Parts: sequence; C-alpha cells; structure tokens
Amino acid sequence: MDSASATPPAAGAELHALAGELYPICRSITGAGTRATLDTIARFVPLARTEVPTGTKVFDWEIPREWNIREAWIANAAGERVVDFRRHNLHVVNYSQPVRARMSLAELRPHLHSLPEHPQWIPYRTSYYRDTWGFCLTDEQLQALPDGLYDVCIDSTLAPGSLSIGEAVLAGESSDEILVWTHVCHPSLCNDNLSAIAVAAHLARSISQRPRALTYRFVFAPTTIGSIAWLALNEDKVGRIRHGLVLASLGDRGAFVYKRSRRGDAEVDRATEYVLAREQSGSVEDFSPYGYDERQFCSPGFDLPVGRLTRTPNGRYAEYHTSADNLEFITPRSLAASLQTCETICSVLEGNRRYRNLSPKCEPRLGPRGLYSNVTGRNPSEFEHALLWVLNQSDGEHDLLSIARRSRIGFDAIRTAATALRDAGLLEALA
Amino acid sequence: MDSASATPPAAGAELHALAGELYPICRSITGAGTRATLDTIARFVPLARTEVPTGTKVFDWEIPREWNIREAWIANAAGERVVDFRRHNLHVVNYSQPVRARMSLAELRPHLHSLPEHPQWIPYRTSYYRDTWGFCLTDEQLQALPDGLYDVCIDSTLAPGSLSIGEAVLAGESSDEILVWTHVCHPSLCNDNLSAIAVAAHLARSISQRPRALTYRFVFAPTTIGSIAWLALNEDKVGRIRHGLVLASLGDRGAFVYKRSRRGDAEVDRATEYVLAREQSGSVEDFSPYGYDERQFCSPGFDLPVGRLTRTPNGRYAEYHTSADNLEFITPRSLAASLQTCETICSVLEGNRRYRNLSPKCEPRLGPRGLYSNVTGRNPSEFEHALLWVLNQSDGEHDLLSIARRSRIGFDAIRTAATALRDAGLLEALA
Amino acid sequence: MDSASATPPAAGAELHALAGELYPICRSITGAGTRATLDTIARFVPLARTEVPTGTKVFDWEIPREWNIREAWIANAAGERVVDFRRHNLHVVNYSQPVRARMSLAELRPHLHSLPEHPQWIPYRTSYYRDTWGFCLTDEQLQALPDGLYDVCIDSTLAPGSLSIGEAVLAGESSDEILVWTHVCHPSLCNDNLSAIAVAAHLARSISQRPRALTYRFVFAPTTIGSIAWLALNEDKVGRIRHGLVLASLGDRGAFVYKRSRRGDAEVDRATEYVLAREQSGSVEDFSPYGYDERQFCSPGFDLPVGRLTRTPNGRYAEYHTSADNLEFITPRSLAASLQTCETICSVLEGNRRYRNLSPKCEPRLGPRGLYSNVTGRNPSEFEHALLWVLNQSDGEHDLLSIARRSRIGFDAIRTAATALRDAGLLEALA
Repeated sequence: MDSASATPPAAGAELHALAGELYPICRSITGAGTRATLDTIARFVPLARTEVPTGTKVFDWEIPREWNIREAWIANAAGERVVDFRRHNLHVVNYSQPVRARMSLAELRPHLHSLPEHPQWIPYRTSYYRDTWGFCLTDEQLQALPDGLYDVCIDSTLAPGSLSIGEAVLAGESSDEILVWTHVCHPSLCNDNLSAIAVAAHLARSISQRPRALTYRFVFAPTTIGSIAWLALNEDKVGRIRHGLVLASLGDRGAFVYKRSRRGDAEVDRATEYVLAREQSGSVEDFSPYGYDERQFCSPGFDLPVGRLTRTPNGRYAEYHTSADNLEFITPRSLAASLQTCETICSVLEGNRRYRNLSPKCEPRLGPRGLYSNVTGRNPSEFEHALLWVLNQSDGEHDLLSIARRSRIGFDAIRTAATALRDAGLLEALA
Repeated sequence: MDSASATPPAAGAELHALAGELYPICRSITGAGTRATLDTIARFVPLARTEVPTGTKVFDWEIPREWNIREAWIANAAGERVVDFRRHNLHVVNYSQPVRARMSLAELRPHLHSLPEHPQWIPYRTSYYRDTWGFCLTDEQLQALPDGLYDVCIDSTLAPGSLSIGEAVLAGESSDEILVWTHVCHPSLCNDNLSAIAVAAHLARSISQRPRALTYRFVFAPTTIGSIAWLALNEDKVGRIRHGLVLASLGDRGAFVYKRSRRGDAEVDRATEYVLAREQSGSVEDFSPYGYDERQFCSPGFDLPVGRLTRTPNGRYAEYHTSADNLEFITPRSLAASLQTCETICSVLEGNRRYRNLSPKCEPRLGPRGLYSNVTGRNPSEFEHALLWVLNQSDGEHDLLSIARRSRIGFDAIRTAATALRDAGLLEALA
Repeated sequence: MDSASATPPAAGAELHALAGELYPICRSITGAGTRATLDTIARFVPLARTEVPTGTKVFDWEIPREWNIREAWIANAAGERVVDFRRHNLHVVNYSQPVRARMSLAELRPHLHSLPEHPQWIPYRTSYYRDTWGFCLTDEQLQALPDGLYDVCIDSTLAPGSLSIGEAVLAGESSDEILVWTHVCHPSLCNDNLSAIAVAAHLARSISQRPRALTYRFVFAPTTIGSIAWLALNEDKVGRIRHGLVLASLGDRGAFVYKRSRRGDAEVDRATEYVLAREQSGSVEDFSPYGYDERQFCSPGFDLPVGRLTRTPNGRYAEYHTSADNLEFITPRSLAASLQTCETICSVLEGNRRYRNLSPKCEPRLGPRGLYSNVTGRNPSEFEHALLWVLNQSDGEHDLLSIARRSRIGFDAIRTAATALRDAGLLEALA
C-alpha cells in the first residue's frame, strides 16, 4: 500500500511520549482528569467541548454525578500508608464514594481487590452505578497485611457536575462523515486506551493538515455512557456517518484485529478488511455485541456502519485492565504502525468511488489517448490492466475497492487508473 | 444441550423391548399385522384410526387390495417343509398372491430370492403392484435344495379391504404443527423401522404429558402409499405443518444423518443441524428424492418443510432389508439417544422465537433490572453475553436459533436470556 | 459424457493437417492473407463475407487502412539477405509501412526485435496503429550481425481497403443463438490461433450436418477491431445471443481453461464448468478484462453471456507469440479432444431445458408407465434415480443442467429421463 500520507519514522516515539504524558492522570467517566486529558489532546487538534449535566436523561440511562478524587490511602496502626493512591491511580476503585474510617482488617477485607493469579499486579475495578468504595492492590500486598486496625481515607466527591466530550469536525468536500471514536475514561492503562488516544490525536492532526474528500468527526469521550450520551444528543447527525471506526488498544505487540460492524458488509468493513489483507497485518472478526462503544453505534435502533480497530482485543491478554498494562506494554513501533494503518484505511475510504464508463460498448482506444503502449504482442503493464479493469467494471455498480479486490491490483493503482480515465473523458464519477 | 426433558437411562431397555414385542408381527402396507402394530402403539398415545378403502384414488395412485397371510411353505417330496413362513416373516415375498401347486425345482426357481453375497441372510422382497408370488431364503438353503418335486403353499388373500393409518394430534398453544411421521409397513426388520416406531411412540407419550407451544401430529402409516393417501385425504391440513420430521432407522450403532427438506433452509433444517452440530452426534445431507416418505412431503406440489432423521440411512448398511436387521442390530443405547435427540429438536423448535427489542437505541441498563453485575472491569458471564446478543439481534429479523448459532452460545442459554429480557419489559415476542 | 456426436479418432490428424495448410499464410487484421484463410475455412462451412471499408467508424475505433505485403528483407553489404520474410512470416513487424533504404546497423538497430531469453525464437510483433516498420529475428541472428551498411526492403502497402469477416449462420429450431467466435488475424502461430480455427471449422461442419435445437453463428474475424466492427454492425442482433464461446489456443498439451463471462453465472458458464468438471479435463477462471474478443462482448455496454475456452491461456506459456508456437507445439490429440469438448458443451447447451411436472403432488406411479421396476426392496437404478430427480426438481425453476449438478447424475442420463417423462405425459417443456 503506497499511501501518500506515510507516517514518518519518528512518529512512534512521539506517540509513545504522548501516552507517557497522559499516563499519570487519573481519568474516569467524569471529572477533572478526563478534562485534563481533553486539554492535552486539544494541542493536536482543536476540540469543541460538550459538558452534559448530571441527571440528563440519555435514552435508558442518566448522566451520573461527577466524580473527583484528591487522595486515598490505607494506613496501618503505626500510621504507615500501606496502600496509597498517590503511588498508582488503580489503587482506588474508580468512582468510590468518600470514606474516612478506622476498621479491622476483617471489616476492610470486602473492600480490597487483588489478582491472586498475578500477585504483583494491581487490578482495575470500577463501580460507577453503585454507591460503594474500595481499594485495589497487589495480591502480595494483600497477603502481607497483618491483622489489626486500619485507617481508611478516600477523599473523593460525587456531586452534580457534568460528563465531558471533546469533538473535532474537519470539514471535507463532502458532508458525509468518517467518525473516529476513542474512549478517554480509563486511568493509567496504556494499551486501553492511551494507545488509541495517542493514535487518534496524531491522526486528527495529520488529517487536519491535508485536503479531505470526506468530513471527519473525531470524538474523544468516556466509554458506554459517553457514546450513549453523544448518540442521544446527536441523533439528528447520525445520518451523516458514512463510515465509523472505534479505535482502542492500538499499542501492544499483537497483530491488528478488526471487528466488523453489525451490518458486516459496510464499506468500512470492506475497506479495512482489504487493507489488513493487503498488508498481511491482521485479521477480521464478525461483529459481536460485547466490546467498546461499537456496542452503542451498532445497537439495532442505530445499526451504523461502525467497526472497531484494535490490536489484541479487550480480555484476550493477561495484562488487560491491570497495572501491567503500562508504558512498557505498548511500543513505539506498534503505535506508529497503527497510525499508518488508520491513515491507509482513511485514504481508501476517501478514495473509493463509483464511476460510469462513458464509452461502454467495446473498449475505447487507449493508445491515442496516451494511455496504452502501441507496440503490442507483449503482456500489458499493471497500469494497463488497471485501466481495463476500471473500464470493464464501471457500470455504476462496482466501486474502486471492489475492483481492486476482484483484480488483485492495489487500490492505489486502481485509483490512479480511474483518475487517468476520468481525465481522458472516459469515466464520470457517480455520487 | 441441557434440555429440560432428559430421557431417563431406563428408556433404552423399554424402547428395545417394544421393538422386540413388535418383531414377530408380519406387517405390510395393508392388513391385520399393520393394525396389530397400531394397537400396540396406541398403548403409548391414543391413536385416531383411518381406514382408506381399497380402490380409493389418491392422486396418481389407488389403494390396493388388502393383503393377509396365514401360512406359506415349500415342502420337498418327503413332505418336509424346507422353507416355512412360520420360522421367519421374510420367507414370503410381501404381497404374494395365493398359490397351491406342485412343481419341479426348475419351475420353482424363478420364484426364489436369496443373497449370494450374504449366504446366511434372508432378503426382504415385496411385490405390491404386480400379481406374483415368491419366497425368500438364505443362499445356503437355496444351494442345498436338491432337484425334485416341491409342494408350494401360500395361503394369502388379496381382497377388498383398506389401508390403515394411526394418528395422534396433541394440541398446543399454537395450532401450527410439528408433523412426526413414521412408517409401519415393514415386517420383522428392526432398524427399518421398529426402531423409529419405538422412538416415535415413546416421544408421543412423553410430549403428550407436557405443555406444548406447538401442536404435534404423530402419524403411523405404511410408506409411500400411506403418505400419498394421507396427503390426498388431508390436503386442507398441510398448511398447518410448520415443521416435519420423518423418523426411520434410529436403532443402529451409526451416527445420526439428517436429510434436509427440499427447501434446504427450513426451520426444522436449521434446528436439527444445530442440535447435531452442538452435540457432535451426526451429519447433515442435502435433500434427494430417494428415501422414505419425505419424497412425498417434498414433492414439488407440496414442498413442505419436512426433513428426515435416521442413523445409517437406507441402503448404506449391508443388513438393510435382510434378516440381519434383527434385534441384535439395534441397541438400547442408540434407541435412547435417538429419543433424546428427537426431544431436543422438538424443544428447540418449540422454543424458537423472534423478538423485538423495545429499547433498541443503545443498550438498556441491565444492572438496575437485576440482570447484570455492577462491579465491572471483568469479562461478563455467558448469561450476560447472551443478554447482549439477544438485545442486539432482536430487530424482528433474527430468531433465537440464529442468535444461538451466531453467538455460539447454547440455545437454552439464549432462550433463558430472552425470557428474562421479556420479563423485564425489554423485548416483545413476535408472532 | 456419452455424447451422441462423438469425434472420430481420425479427427486429430485432419485438424492438424488444416492447421498445417494455413500455417504459411501471412495473416493480419486486414489483407489478402486473412481473405485466403476465410476461403479455406469456407470449404468446411459456407461463409457469408462482410468487407468493412477503411475509415468506417466502429464505436470509438475506425477501420484502418488495409495492409498487404509482398516481400521484406535485410541484406548485408555483400547483398546476402540476412533476414528474409520469405523464410518466416514473423520476420516482419505486422503492419509495417513500406521502406527501401540503406543504413548503418546503428540506424537499423531500433527497428530490430529479438528475444534474448529465447535466442533461437523469432518474436511476434505488431504495430497496427502507429506508422512505423520493423523486423523480428532470433537473438542469435541479431548478435551475429556485424557493423556495416545494410539494405532494407519492406515492400508493403497500407491503403484504403477493407476488413474481412466470415460468418456462418446455421438455423435451428429456435432463433436463439450460440455464438462461436474465432480470431483469424495471427500469422504463422499455431496454437494462437490456427488450432481454434481448425477446431471451429470442423465444429461448424459437424453441426451443420445435424439437427439443431438452437441457431449457431460461427464468426471468423480479426481480433479486437474485428469483434468491435462486428458488434457495431450487428448491434441489433446481439439480443439473440443466448450463449457464446470465444475459441482460442486449443492445440497445446495443457488442460482446458474456461474463462467465465462477465456475468459469471451465465448458462454457458454453468454448462462449460459442468462439462470440464465431469470430464476432469480442465479448470475454470473468473472473468478478467484482458484476453481475446471476450473483452468486447463482455464490455459493460454489452455484457453478453460469452465465455472463452482455451487450453493454456495467452501469456502463460513461453512459446506464446513466438516462432516456437509452431506445428510441433500443437498435437492431433489435443485438437481432437478440443473439438470433442466443444461438441459436448454445445450438446449440453442445446439439451438444457426447464420442465414442469404435471403430476406435482406426490410421486406419480412410474411402474405402470413402464418406467420403474416393480420388484422393490433393492436400490433403484441410475435411470430410476434420474426420473425421481427430474420429477422432484421440475417446478419451472430448475433446468436439467442444475438437476444434473445437484444429483451428480450425468447430463445425458438426466436428459434421457426427462424425455421419457415428457413422452409419458408427466412433464411439459417450458419455453
């Protein structure tokens, strides 16, 4: 795939540095950490911000109270902080209500979460819609806690506020949109989802700096409640979404896995499947209703053409949703290749067209138009094959992507041939 | 498949005992033996009886004279009965006309049938629509017959009478029917078809004792002319047949073979294919117009959704239509598993539904409805996956069976999830 | 395939002899050689001749000036003819303009074409639409040419004239046509295309001598400009073409390769695929817009059901378009088998029908109609299976070819069964 917009080699380091910059922030589905994250992304592309107030009804859901946290710790009888949120954001169960108490280990125990199968990792736990609190710690820490009294402090607030969404619309020749959706609610987890945040921010910047055949809509928002809120507030706009990609987990060392939209044969499905097959860089799976925000876009009442691009999907690697999903788990090389693949997919989606052959009865003469070698008797070049394929298939039914697939000629070569034929007056582009 | 109606372990012995009880009776497409067989079946489920008189026109056919036989033998010059119907029903060609004669071996020879490739087995031969007579014997017997004169006696009658059909209709919530068809015309052949008679009789009893979402129609009748007669007499009822199964050869040690209906994608085809694949208990074949009574149900003028379930199909085992298809050839274990599989298929057909998601825009909240764990960060349970699949696919197009197949979650789990969602007001059942 | 019209064993020698007779003629897309070739073909089947004048507009093209050549040579300073058209037609670039000049080897060199990778073969080059001239020679000849002055002579004419097409229409019961198209423009190349000329001429003669269910249209014409001209002049007739075959390269030792029509599932595609699979004599490929005259028939403005039968396709053998495509490269055995396969395909296309079962409810009785054995209990014969298949599938939707494929019974047996059923009043043929 000889795409014009090649990712420069230095991109991997930049992408990884951005993940590193965002890593210390404690994010959640609402709150200051998420807003700080959007501020950082806005350095790459201007973001329109939407604040959805607590209590707003969004379909079957309601925007929860906003959560903010200052500190959280467990101290032993000697006053030593044996677990401290300052050391790792994952130590506190996300959305814990405030607590300040002294209790025995037995009383504390139901509030402690660890991973016995990975005794040195801290698990990631949330409790958005239940009033409770808790701490996460390594199983080694947990096992080492002696009986006794502990002081527990979670200095958090759950109060009316808002849910934050950042959005960049980059207008193109057509008002038809490519939606690129990235969730921003996870704290200190690198593959899920600082990797995709970094890729999407760079992608948005890169695309903002070039002409666009289609309009792009980049949205950065919390997962589930964020996409539900966005859909509820933008129901009038979903008809513009011609293609959509949910980006997640794009930094690990695994191959790409594309999950098809619910429709299964949307143009974004065909384009991404084509790109991954052509680059032998990953595989494709059918839609399933478990995952990230594609769940909402592909709910039966919307059924939008939105697929999901990841490397190793959620739940299929041990480090998933643990402290081991750290900056070492993601690599500059993977991040750079992810950005490049996203750009290639976008390039195919923008370049894909249907044409009508204006000289459909028999082949038109290509030689006099400077498109074909005049000494024959030899096999034609790939460009000449591409011309023949485009002419033959341009009956208004087949787009360039389907011609590329059928002919096994690269999409860029097919697009170049189509452009040459259009310039020669032999094709007209269809809407 | 964790079906509710599990076949008890003792069923195999009972099924085999019923086959043993029916084995000595000489059945044919008409006559006393067939009526005696229906009497026995009626102990399991009440049977409405139809007698179709000789001469009745049924489509292109006509009900033949009724055949009854009392004795049949060949005696040598010494008066010894060298072949005797009392020893085995197969010794006489089924539907032989009466004969009482003395003749040389040379004259007798064209009336004698044996199986040289299996010299100790008696073949099964019929001659329903040609006025002739004959004997079947082992090839060893045949080769041992010395030249000389023989006395031949077939004390049969071919006279106006009727063809007998037994039928049990078990009403269900819906008047849509599952037709279960079993042929009862074969004498002293165990796999073909005492095995299926035993399975169908037990199935009818079991289903008669439980609530039914659909109406069941069990028919026991002779093959070919029986189904032709039934269709001719019940043409006004065939529109009710939503699913149909022809049962045959269900006692041998082979795996199940399901033959699809002529339509190929009828619900009974999808359901049975699903059950056999899920249980890894057999394979599926495309429709072909040779076989048992599915030939008539799937003739182009009817084209009913009727498939056929057997173990090893007719003609694919050496013992087929010979005296070696005896009580040792069928096993209690196979019979019990056949009954269980029939019950599972019926359970899937009765449980299959299409629903409409009443909250189709984004996912509804499952936690507050008690359907979903509130502490997230872990992978959901199979039940939670089933809920998501049913919600996502319930757009009115997909039935539960298709959701089970696509999700690779068991049908029972999918059905349980659908019921829970319906009870929570999130789904409505479609007609 | 037990086709009635079997190719006699002597056919191979006759076919090869015809290729040998045509080999010395210098053909091109216009001119005397092509007319002489049509004269020879006309010995096998009367040909209507069309002469399309130079300058005639045919779609995007124009009939070029007519090319004729008398002699062409290169002589060294000693007057020796080092390259001479009399020794091989390929020595002159086809459509060379006239030239008479003395020049140095350096000046001559750009006009000389050889094949370094096959130093003993002369390449075939053409220059129909560019005013130039040239010679082709073996690379050994080329390398051996010393520096010095050379006399160059091409005694050709490019003048107003016409393009020649020969056509035989053999009327059948139906006016629907099978088009058999063969290109006749290549000089002294045996596989491409004297092989197909020989096969098509014999096929035309054979078919002209038997009854025909369909009308045949055999066309012999130059490639590309010939089919474009024919389509331009016969646009009103293309609606009659129900099936079409472009024949080419039918003499080499390779297996058959059938290239599907652009439609991909035309009856000729299904029939040829069936014949090749049944005879295990070749493979099938999807349509592509590079090749022979199928390019024009399958251009999107026509999209006719025309496929292409070859053995090894153009460009996939080293001898292609070189002097090594000579009389040794094609074999009597391959030519005879090609003729036989063409006859079988035509036979299937003519015999293929759709019928309607006039007794569609249940099976009709076949025994009383003399079509079925009366002693049952054994497996039916292939003929009996064929009867059952034809009856079952004859609902007006399925043609005999689809029944043959689905039943895995040979087409001839299926056709025989259908004829017997029609004669028994059980089927009616559909239009």
